Amino acid sequence: MDEAGWLERAIELARENVASGGRPFAALVVRDGAIVATGVNSSLADNDPTAHAELVAIRAACAALGSLTLSGCLLVASGQPCPMCQAAAIYADIERTIYAAGIDVTSIGGFDSSPVAAELARPFSERSSQLVHVPAAGADVPFREWSEPAT
Amino acid sequence: MDEAGWLERAIELARENVASGGRPFAALVVRDGAIVATGVNSSLADNDPTAHAELVAIRAACAALGSLTLSGCLLVASGQPCPMCQAAAIYADIERTIYAAGIDVTSIGGFDSSPVAAELARPFSERSSQLVHVPAAGADVPFREWSEPAT
Repeated sequence: MDEAGWLERAIELARENVASGGRPFAALVVRDGAIVATGVNSSLADNDPTAHAELVAIRAACAALGSLTLSGCLLVASGQPCPMCQAAAIYADIERTIYAAGIDVTSIGGFDSSPVAAELARPFSERSSQLVHVPAAGADVPFREWSEPAT
Repeated sequence: MDEAGWLERAIELARENVASGGRPFAALVVRDGAIVATGVNSSLADNDPTAHAELVAIRAACAALGSLTLSGCLLVASGQPCPMCQAAAIYADIERTIYAAGIDVTSIGGFDSSPVAAELARPFSERSSQLVHVPAAGADVPFREWSEPAT
């Protein structure tokens, strides 16, 4: 199936999720022309603000493959991934992400991740969500222990 | 317990995670002076690139409270939250996040989220991880169905 076909499938899954009371997002992880895993936004059903379709699909794909990396996989999203999901894709070594609905379209449903992107682009001291470095004794110890395991 | 005490507890949990073979990160969600949930980085144990301590703690706190929002909660992290976790905190309505180890310290263990932050700050067309809008027929349908449920 080509990329247009995968997008069509993601859109179908997003519609099914809406019919089930979920938010209008779905995603697929594809490798070698086959679906490795799918995900839909399950935030409402699961009380989980991180359960965005792409993040759910990435977790499911890693579980299916028994792998921490999705190198060589394509991520297919029905709507533009938010910054959280973009970062998750980077951590999962996803090389290519395609999405169907841009923010102009997701906004029809009231979904616009651009304020979150703008917030992340601000220096910590200028954010509305406080993010504060509080120096603490021993903060370095876990990192030293990780780097130099006891013999 | 004051913020210094919560940070000390997060650092302890991070050390315990290292002793168990996990990455040197832990986090707490605190409300009204009590721990709602904790999380440690379980990426290696769970083959889950999204299982950063803060994201795990946020999911656990939402599950514990049966709530999609952590409004009124404090997020305490042993190390500077990465952009994925910063965005997760925003989606969870976390009002204040404090962290002990800055990137200069997390880098002792080889952990530096600044390249991910830099990648997210680039326009989609200039990223090394491809992020491409592929227009597709019907991409708007899930969003319209979400906004105007069939009667």
